[in-house]
Amino acid sequence: MEGKKAVLIIGAGDATGGAIARRFAREGYVACVTRRSEDKLAPLLEQIRNEGGEAHGFGSDARKEEDMVALVQKIEAEIAPIEAAIFNIGANVRYGITETTARVYFKVWEMACFGGFLMGREAAKVMLPRGRGTIIFTGATASLRGRDGFAAFAGAKHALRALAQSMARELWPKGIHVAHPVVDGAIDTEFIRSNFPERYATKDQGGIVNPDHIADLYWQIHMQPRDAWTHETEIRPWMEPW
Amino acid sequence: MEGKKAVLIIGAGDATGGAIARRFAREGYVACVTRRSEDKLAPLLEQIRNEGGEAHGFGSDARKEEDMVALVQKIEAEIAPIEAAIFNIGANVRYGITETTARVYFKVWEMACFGGFLMGREAAKVMLPRGRGTIIFTGATASLRGRDGFAAFAGAKHALRALAQSMARELWPKGIHVAHPVVDGAIDTEFIRSNFPERYATKDQGGIVNPDHIADLYWQIHMQPRDAWTHETEIRPWMEPW
Amino acid sequence: MEGKKAVLIIGAGDATGGAIARRFAREGYVACVTRRSEDKLAPLLEQIRNEGGEAHGFGSDARKEEDMVALVQKIEAEIAPIEAAIFNIGANVRYGITETTARVYFKVWEMACFGGFLMGREAAKVMLPRGRGTIIFTGATASLRGRDGFAAFAGAKHALRALAQSMARELWPKGIHVAHPVVDGAIDTEFIRSNFPERYATKDQGGIVNPDHIADLYWQIHMQPRDAWTHETEIRPWMEPW
Amino acid sequence: MEGKKAVLIIGAGDATGGAIARRFAREGYVACVTRRSEDKLAPLLEQIRNEGGEAHGFGSDARKEEDMVALVQKIEAEIAPIEAAIFNIGANVRYGITETTARVYFKVWEMACFGGFLMGREAAKVMLPRGRGTIIFTGATASLRGRDGFAAFAGAKHALRALAQSMARELWPKGIHVAHPVVDGAIDTEFIRSNFPERYATKDQGGIVNPDHIADLYWQIHMQPRDAWTHETEIRPWMEPW
Repeated sequence: MEGKKAVLIIGAGDATGGAIARRFAREGYVACVTRRSEDKLAPLLEQIRNEGGEAHGFGSDARKEEDMVALVQKIEAEIAPIEAAIFNIGANVRYGITETTARVYFKVWEMACFGGFLMGREAAKVMLPRGRGTIIFTGATASLRGRDGFAAFAGAKHALRALAQSMARELWPKGIHVAHPVVDGAIDTEFIRSNFPERYATKDQGGIVNPDHIADLYWQIHMQPRDAWTHETEIRPWMEPW
Repeated sequence: MEGKKAVLIIGAGDATGGAIARRFAREGYVACVTRRSEDKLAPLLEQIRNEGGEAHGFGSDARKEEDMVALVQKIEAEIAPIEAAIFNIGANVRYGITETTARVYFKVWEMACFGGFLMGREAAKVMLPRGRGTIIFTGATASLRGRDGFAAFAGAKHALRALAQSMARELWPKGIHVAHPVVDGAIDTEFIRSNFPERYATKDQGGIVNPDHIADLYWQIHMQPRDAWTHETEIRPWMEPW
Repeated sequence: MEGKKAVLIIGAGDATGGAIARRFAREGYVACVTRRSEDKLAPLLEQIRNEGGEAHGFGSDARKEEDMVALVQKIEAEIAPIEAAIFNIGANVRYGITETTARVYFKVWEMACFGGFLMGREAAKVMLPRGRGTIIFTGATASLRGRDGFAAFAGAKHALRALAQSMARELWPKGIHVAHPVVDGAIDTEFIRSNFPERYATKDQGGIVNPDHIADLYWQIHMQPRDAWTHETEIRPWMEPW
Repeated sequence: MEGKKAVLIIGAGDATGGAIARRFAREGYVACVTRRSEDKLAPLLEQIRNEGGEAHGFGSDARKEEDMVALVQKIEAEIAPIEAAIFNIGANVRYGITETTARVYFKVWEMACFGGFLMGREAAKVMLPRGRGTIIFTGATASLRGRDGFAAFAGAKHALRALAQSMARELWPKGIHVAHPVVDGAIDTEFIRSNFPERYATKDQGGIVNPDHIADLYWQIHMQPRDAWTHETEIRPWMEPW
């Protein structure tokens, strides 16, 4: 593993995580990608390898502390130092407050926030002795404001943002670049295609975000020299009202 | 219980919850106050009764769904309709990110946020059919920004703010006033007296917040006519840098 | 003028300034109110006097430094010390960016912001030696975010907010309470009645803000003890989407 | 001028404007740079030409409407269509509120905000018929919050931010990318070198922002495909407390 560098992407299930993995792989990073069920990662791994990159897939539950600890240790020991760690799990559900069960409220937080805490902490542990590294948490509109029906989702995203901000203030002066880009708009995914066909129809005019462009932004953030680091930024389609 | 009105205060353990209870009791509300251990509520109950008010204490774990459901039902059935519900539990801890255990991260969220969700939802259920009521979640500086060492606490407070905002947008048009006052500064509590004696010494000059003045603010919010409702506001001592 | 206290209200032309004047007058303050043309103040002065209060009207151009300096000096010398100064001039215009003339852009800033600076500075000068006083700048939705067509108005209101915040951070520790309440919604004025009749029709249900309730808020802010001061707060009707 | 593209940079007096001009020139854009006194632009123009780029310097007062109108018309008619327009004038002064003269308060706004309005409007006029273009306003910490002594500067920067946001919401759907990057930290300029030598000494460790890295960010923003546009972003040195 002489000279190799790894990028860890927690939640490479949707279009975004995959696009980031491919982008970093094209730049020479070993892409370490996770989903809960490992076999669903096969197409992404194949794609990266076909493009000449190196990739490893892991079936790993981001909400389980022992899984996250073991995952980070394994990559560091057997693959390469983790130079960038990216948390990319959402859990976008919408329920009126009286219909939000305690189970849903907890599960959304566990998935979209607690997993981010575990990744962030474990990544920080291995990056701190090296005094360098990038940790990115993917934000959404719900990171910035609550909305009718989004008590659970906005709660988890707000908490993730607080994590990113607290970690940035602690870790930047130790050389670790923690960032929180906010994607404010529909992303080109199967979910949007099926559920919002009218929105999806604006794809050709640039009405929904191309995951490759999110990946470009993440790469740019990772490449920033340390005199000019970004913590929070945002992207949205030109047509998106905000 | 003809014509009676109840105020429910979750977390009447510290100075603030008690001051709010006394204030509402002086205005004729039946104060229903909770802590995890009921017997610690005795001095507060006695004080309210000595001032001519009516008060009931409940040993209740705000993090337990069945406790919260039972508590709200009991008050509604046996005491009076809950006209105001106030969530006042904090969990201010400070740890560097690598020292933050999964247990601490979860417990802080469970106490300072999940309990708020349970109270908010149960209060909404009984207020909605009446088309009126006030729900207040107490915010702190950590509700607004993360800070070195506050990943857990700021996460919980950010999530609570998202809850307040989401509920407000859903429930205001149904007549329920949801508010999120932010107390940005040390409050006159035993904790501050013991741990920050220099800060506490500024008390005579108005350097720490008097809980009675927080109670005044909460009462003012509850009294606002519906053409002029406040969602977020803030108070801090004149000497507090911000 | 033994023991008298004055409130200065710049821009008592609309419903809000008048309501604040009446409220402070009922509390025993001498209301000093201004408009560009003094004679239009007659009905307000009469109303205050009929309610048993003391009031003085001044034709004064808030944008003229010499006017503002003279006004404050005159009140201090001849009427009473200014204990509260309230800036209440808006200039709500809407133009697309290419239709916004340099003249409009400047005039809106001059009226809604520069006048506030002049009042704030002159009030600070007389309050500082006394180590007490309240200075309030009225904010609006446009204070917090820009919007299509509001480059000029949002610019002025953002700048006024920056003024309020800068002054608060400088003057609070010197005993002067600077606040910036944001009124986010239509106010019950002749302007709304004529231009937004459908909105105005919601008045009976509390759909537009009653100026008397703004006045209550301002009075509450002025009354806050200094261990619990508010800088920014907001009010809006329950029905108002935000 | 077949196929040529121009970038207009208002305020190329400091390190930042020059760095942006050079960056765009290296990418093939004709750099059109302004200062109040044209002759001070000579070194920058020479540098760009030495690097093989094309550059034009203009002595132009950004606060004068007729100057700005003439400038934009001249470039469009004689040089190339303006594909990117960048407003980069600051006016960082610090005075306590009672020491802030009306003249200073006005001049700071005129320079740091009104000039931006003029540039933004004139650029929009020529870009709208083409349905494309980038307009960038440089923000600072003072764009986001007021501070003791910064009533004038924060006022101007807040107003500029409101302009950027209002223009973005109006012009994005018409194909014009309006952005507001916030540079939150000392920039490597002669001003910092002379006035803050201790801060300047951190340059080798990345403690002050390299203008070339600001230029990189601006170029990235200009290059973004329209499904993934950034409006507001921020950069600061890793060592900068925030």
